Amino acid sequence: MKINRYVDISTIDRDAKKDYIDRHSPFIHCAKSAKKGEKLKVTVKLGDEYPHPDDFDHYIAWVQLWNGESNLAQATFVAGALGNQAGHVEVDFYIVPTRNLKLTAMAFCTKHGLWQSDEVVVEVTE
Amino acid sequence: MKINRYVDISTIDRDAKKDYIDRHSPFIHCAKSAKKGEKLKVTVKLGDEYPHPDDFDHYIAWVQLWNGESNLAQATFVAGALGNQAGHVEVDFYIVPTRNLKLTAMAFCTKHGLWQSDEVVVEVTE
Amino acid sequence: MKINRYVDISTIDRDAKKDYIDRHSPFIHCAKSAKKGEKLKVTVKLGDEYPHPDDFDHYIAWVQLWNGESNLAQATFVAGALGNQAGHVEVDFYIVPTRNLKLTAMAFCTKHGLWQSDEVVVEVTE
Amino acid sequence: MKINRYVDISTIDRDAKKDYIDRHSPFIHCAKSAKKGEKLKVTVKLGDEYPHPDDFDHYIAWVQLWNGESNLAQATFVAGALGNQAGHVEVDFYIVPTRNLKLTAMAFCTKHGLWQSDEVVVEVTE
Repeated sequence: MKINRYVDISTIDRDAKKDYIDRHSPFIHCAKSAKKGEKLKVTVKLGDEYPHPDDFDHYIAWVQLWNGESNLAQATFVAGALGNQAGHVEVDFYIVPTRNLKLTAMAFCTKHGLWQSDEVVVEVTE
Repeated sequence: MKINRYVDISTIDRDAKKDYIDRHSPFIHCAKSAKKGEKLKVTVKLGDEYPHPDDFDHYIAWVQLWNGESNLAQATFVAGALGNQAGHVEVDFYIVPTRNLKLTAMAFCTKHGLWQSDEVVVEVTE
Repeated sequence: MKINRYVDISTIDRDAKKDYIDRHSPFIHCAKSAKKGEKLKVTVKLGDEYPHPDDFDHYIAWVQLWNGESNLAQATFVAGALGNQAGHVEVDFYIVPTRNLKLTAMAFCTKHGLWQSDEVVVEVTE
Repeated sequence: MKINRYVDISTIDRDAKKDYIDRHSPFIHCAKSAKKGEKLKVTVKLGDEYPHPDDFDHYIAWVQLWNGESNLAQATFVAGALGNQAGHVEVDFYIVPTRNLKLTAMAFCTKHGLWQSDEVVVEVTE
């Protein structure tokens, strides 16, 4: 079992490889600072530029949201939730932080394995 | 195993019962019409008025989104994702409809079992 | 969203309907009595006589084990875990009871929805 | 997010560290050879010698079974499934192999993060 990591695709020459890396990578979108005890929306979205298939034998089956070593939430999908057309799997989790966060997301493609996002740090203030 | 169903709490006398029903019920919030093949945001949120505890031995462990008899997605949470304070578990799923939707949500409380939302119909047009 | 229930297939005339009901129904296999505080093996198996497809667009995606209103465990599968041939999805959960159990299992088929097993009572003694 | 890996505890001096590593590590127990197209039982069990707590704020929330980069199955538990006493989380998955397997298991502790088993190779013959 190995974990694939995102690589900045502007540093990559081959178009097919850019596409492959981008469409499998989960990206975390959220505010960079938050209030302790207040709800924070954290979006996990697959692919920044390139869409991923939603075929029965090739789709994104689940994504996980982690804070450091803690698995806060997991969303599991069926093939076809994106209408069986290429797209960007997306889910908004809502969490209530009590201290600074170090968020990462994982995503599992049924053909191409496990992918880890870059870490996103959220400063949490009183 | 039984499934608890939402009952309009304005029809209920006792405050404790209003609270109990409302905070355990998942509610679906989404547009009532959508375009075929375009992304639709579907929010599942627990409780319309009353918040639910987020204690280690009493929390909302998962929610599911169903279209008719098809389970589109499930989100699973750890206790503490809401900061161990009472709140409204919430998640936004994004789906791409190809025909009319009949959405329901299920939510599981680790102390008070399984709860089903009212059905929400979404008309999907070309 | 509706839940399909097992019906004793010996009471059913049509072979196709026997097959349909049997292969979608989860069955609980376990000892009828157990010791408090000792591990109990609980098998959830789909179909008593008829196997279910394991196709990418038609498979058993998950099973759940319930004790009364409490969801003890869930097992989620990918299509292909049974080698893409018809078979009986099966999982053994191990639980440690502290009082009498009323077990039910749920199973979700990606084409034919949610199915609930008959209840199995386990007497738990000191 | 980091992944903790099993280390042979006979090489470790401190008892507390032996305990810590062993009780968090998933172990795969299964036959070393299998027939193509026939059901294979794969047990994932936490801890070889030391039991893990099953407390509401400290338990094994899920285990996953992987074949190479493919996530075959996941089992998710509630706190209390082991009677709120220390024990070994255990689940038997049944899979049908079509070619040689390289199995690994992952386990998530709500306090001490993600742990990966050693790889187990299963030779699959016609």
